[in-house]
This record gives sequence, C-alpha cells and structure tokens, in this order.
Amino acid sequence: MSVKFDARMREWREQIDANLKKTIELSAYPADFREVLDYAVFPGGKRLRPILFLEWHSLFAPPGQAALDFACGLELMHCFSLIHDDMPCIDNDDMRRGKPTVHKKYGEGKALLAGDALLDMAYNCMMNACFAAGNGNPFYFYRLCGENGIIHGEYLDVYGKCRSIEDLISMYKKKTGAIIECACAVGYLFAQKFDVKSILPVTWLENGKPLIEYIEGMTDDERTNVKLIGGALRFGESFGIAFQLYDDLSEYVAGEKSDGTTVMDYIDLDEAKKLLNHYLNGAISVLDSGYNGNTEYLRELTEKFVIV
Amino acid sequence: MSVKFDARMREWREQIDANLKKTIELSAYPADFREVLDYAVFPGGKRLRPILFLEWHSLFAPPGQAALDFACGLELMHCFSLIHDDMPCIDNDDMRRGKPTVHKKYGEGKALLAGDALLDMAYNCMMNACFAAGNGNPFYFYRLCGENGIIHGEYLDVYGKCRSIEDLISMYKKKTGAIIECACAVGYLFAQKFDVKSILPVTWLENGKPLIEYIEGMTDDERTNVKLIGGALRFGESFGIAFQLYDDLSEYVAGEKSDGTTVMDYIDLDEAKKLLNHYLNGAISVLDSGYNGNTEYLRELTEKFVIV
Repeated sequence: MSVKFDARMREWREQIDANLKKTIELSAYPADFREVLDYAVFPGGKRLRPILFLEWHSLFAPPGQAALDFACGLELMHCFSLIHDDMPCIDNDDMRRGKPTVHKKYGEGKALLAGDALLDMAYNCMMNACFAAGNGNPFYFYRLCGENGIIHGEYLDVYGKCRSIEDLISMYKKKTGAIIECACAVGYLFAQKFDVKSILPVTWLENGKPLIEYIEGMTDDERTNVKLIGGALRFGESFGIAFQLYDDLSEYVAGEKSDGTTVMDYIDLDEAKKLLNHYLNGAISVLDSGYNGNTEYLRELTEKFVIV
Repeated sequence: MSVKFDARMREWREQIDANLKKTIELSAYPADFREVLDYAVFPGGKRLRPILFLEWHSLFAPPGQAALDFACGLELMHCFSLIHDDMPCIDNDDMRRGKPTVHKKYGEGKALLAGDALLDMAYNCMMNACFAAGNGNPFYFYRLCGENGIIHGEYLDVYGKCRSIEDLISMYKKKTGAIIECACAVGYLFAQKFDVKSILPVTWLENGKPLIEYIEGMTDDERTNVKLIGGALRFGESFGIAFQLYDDLSEYVAGEKSDGTTVMDYIDLDEAKKLLNHYLNGAISVLDSGYNGNTEYLRELTEKFVIV
C-alpha cells in the first residue's frame, strides 16, 4: 500500500513541478525576474495543496490539464504568502526550506514584487483553468486568499491578539485552513463541471462560511452529491486545522523556536497530540461517506500527520 | 459643455467612491485593518481608470451595478500598486497625495498586507462582476496587472535598464498603459455581454498583445463591432502612454524631482510636449469611428491632458 502511495505522490509532484516550471518559464517577465520566481517556487515542499485538489478531483473523475493548472494556481498562491511572510517587516526569516529566503537572496524589492507576481499568476492560472473547463463560477475565490483566507489570517497572526486556543484555531482556519478547504472542495466540484451556483446558494458568500443547503425539488442523486460536497468541505476544514497543529507540534518536539503564538502556549503536549488526532480522525471519517473513487490515498495522506 | 463635463465626472466619482467605501466596509477584515485599507483608497485621485471604464461602457449601454463593481476593481488594483511602489524597498516615498504614505502611517508590515489585500480584493471584485453580468471570460486579466501589466512594468522601472526613449515607452505601456487600455476595451466589451472569445481569437494571449482579427463568416454588424473594439484598444493604448508622459512633464514643469527615469532624460521640453500631444490626438481620432454613444465626455477628458 505504502509503496503505491509513495509512487502516486511522486507522480503528482512531478506533474505539478513540471507545470509550475513551464508556467514561470513561459511568462512574459524578464529572465532575471523569472529566476527570482523560480527560486521562490523550487525546490518545493510537499505540494500538499495541489495534491489535495488532485486527489479530491480524482474521487469524481481523473484530472486533466485544466485541473492541473488550477492545482498549480493553489501552489503559487501558497508560495506568494511565504515570500511576503518571510520579509523583514513581517516574520523577518533568513532561511526557508534550508536555503536563504527570497529577500535574503535577491533583496527586499525583488521579493516584494515576486510575491505580487505569484499572487497575480495564481489568480490567472485559476481563472483560466475555470474558463477552460467551463467552470465559470468564481465564488470560491472569496475563501482562498483575502478577507476569509491567507491575508486575513496573516494579519491576525501578526497584529491580532490571540487570547485563547479558540482564537488561535480561528486564526489557523483563515491563515492555513481556508486554502486547504478550498483545495479539497473545489477539486471535487471542478471534476463535476456542473453549475455550482444552482446547488450551493449564496449563503456560501455570507461571511465566507460555506453552508450546504438542500434545495426543494432536488433529485435523490443531487441530494447525495450535495452530501458528498459537504464532506469535501468538512474534510478540508479538519485537515487544514490539523496540518497547522502538526506544524506547531513538530516544531515544538524538534526544539525549534516559533515566530509567534502556537498551540503549545495554551495546552500541553499530550493535549495537543489529542487535539491534532481529533481533527485528523474527523477528516478520515468523511472518507467513508460513499465516494465513488478510491479514497485510500487521501486516507494514507491524512495518516502521515498523526503524531503518537 | 465644460459644466456638464464637470458634473458628469463628479457624479462618476461619487458613485465610485461610495462603492469602494462599501466594498471595504463590508469586507470580513478586522476593523483596524479596514482602517488601513480605507486610508489607502481615500481620498482618491482622479479615479481615472474606473471613469474610463464607465465612459467606454456608456458608449454602448449605461453601466449597472456589475459594471460599477468591475470599475472599482480597477481602482483597487491601482491602489495596491501605489502602496507597494511607495515602500522603502521600492521608491521609499514618505508622502502621497499630500499625506503620509501607508507604510509611514501604519508601518511596513501593515502596508505590505494592505497592498496584498487590495490586489486580492480587486480580482474578486472583477471576477464576481464578470460572473454577475454573464461575462465569464477572464482572458483580459492577463493584461492588467502581472506579466504584461503593472508588476512587469514596475520591475523594469526599478531593475531594468532604459537605454532609449523606446525602452521607456515600452516600460510605460506595461506599468501605466496596460490597465488603462483594459479599462477602455473591457468597459466597451463588458457593456455588450457577448462571447468575447468568438470574436477575439487566442491571439490576444500571445505575448499579451491584443490582435483584432476578422473571422470568416462574420456579418457586417459583427465586422463593424470588431472595428469599434479595436478602436477602444487603440484609444486606451494611446491614452495610457500619454497619461504617463503628462505625469513626467507636469513634474518637470513644477520643478519636482522624479524617482527614476522620465521622458525628460531623453528629449527636451518641446519635443516631449509634441510627443504627448501626438498620443492624445491618436486617442481622440479614434472617437470619430462611429460609436453610437456620446463620445464628447471622452474627448473632453482626453483634452484635459494636453499641455500647450
């Protein structure tokens, strides 16, 4: 099982990396700026967000080029947030993934513009992917990056006051969770090419909180599908929080100093492990809801984050 | 004439400002961050980009709420670029429009995140406006901000070498011109709600350079329309370059020191005035091509930038 899983993850990563490489290479930016963008995006980390998107897409149908482009947009958005997060005026980090951060290597001006460029490129990738696949509804973009996602979470992390573990989880849901939740839910929706709007009413937009509702006159199949979409959202929400808790815990166990507040400021190691595993189990339990595709990869991916 | 023109511009500005105000107020960001965003967006300048969009829209049909939203997205994108442009690692400007720049007032971290937030908000406004109006094609976003627009131009301005006036104009076309060109052309297209893709082939995407082509089997009306769309692009291109030249010239005449290269580094005042008026005349000449709406406002707006 694990051999098959490893091969599958390696294959996704190769596809994602080749597509990201091409996207940057073919962009109209000057060569010396493309070098900065390439430095920021390679070598990558786990490529978790695009992989979650592609795995959830696979539960309904095998992903094609448009889906791969959308997945890569998620990774570019993540990379944008890392560049700006590392800058002296935010976290002031010198190193990331074992090499100098973008501003240490190329200076702050180029780092600022590289972050801007990757955010812009992310939106362009995702918008064009939606258009190419006939998935024109951009409502879920609200949940990715801005007021309900990365930027709001980042602001709370740097300038907000976390008074309780509830505040912390709420911040994590925005900073790390929203894009992961979208990766899962949009991956599953993207595969269906259906008019999302007819099934998810505007309530998604209110406070950016998804609310799945059954609509009068739905067929049984449609009702089942709404349940499965809801599952993708719940999986993503739980996984997103768990992923950030896992990060806190591994840093703590490794004896590393954290940039800011972490879950270890509120509870002890045993409680933190329990909380992490609670969210991971929450995610895994969704996978038994009757999806057509093979949920084993998502199960194994989730189990990688268990800390015993 | 001028009284009517002034009233019209004032009315647009009031509509734009009210919509921008609401967009920021209703966003899910914390109140202290919304304050930063509001500071960055108000009081505004000429609101030139949204006004060009709305005027070009008006040549085909009166703009509704979706068009106003799209127009405001253009202004938010412009405001994003100003915040990051002013930061110490780029131009290091302390003042803008007679008050401290965002990072001077709120610190660099908040300025960085405010720029990111406005860029994200701009894309969300425009994508949702397109969706609401049934204008699903996001291909023109390529020309707005990133590889063929503001960010590329900004990179060339800061890190590129301008060796000639041709290099300078080419940089201006990206940094200032692309968003203005889009404001005009997309304003006119947005009003038509037609499937842009069927009329403008993929050639628009190649190097981000719009190329209007007649397609076999078009009716006479469609051919006329393609000509008028081409006019909107030509008007926007000329106006965009002229606007930046006007900026250079007025700074020079006022005895202000410029942040970087300007047209005055290559040619003298008389030649620069001639060049500016050449582009302005190029824009104005388009307005005689047979548009249905009243082109007088666009004519008078363009004439405001003539320097004699």
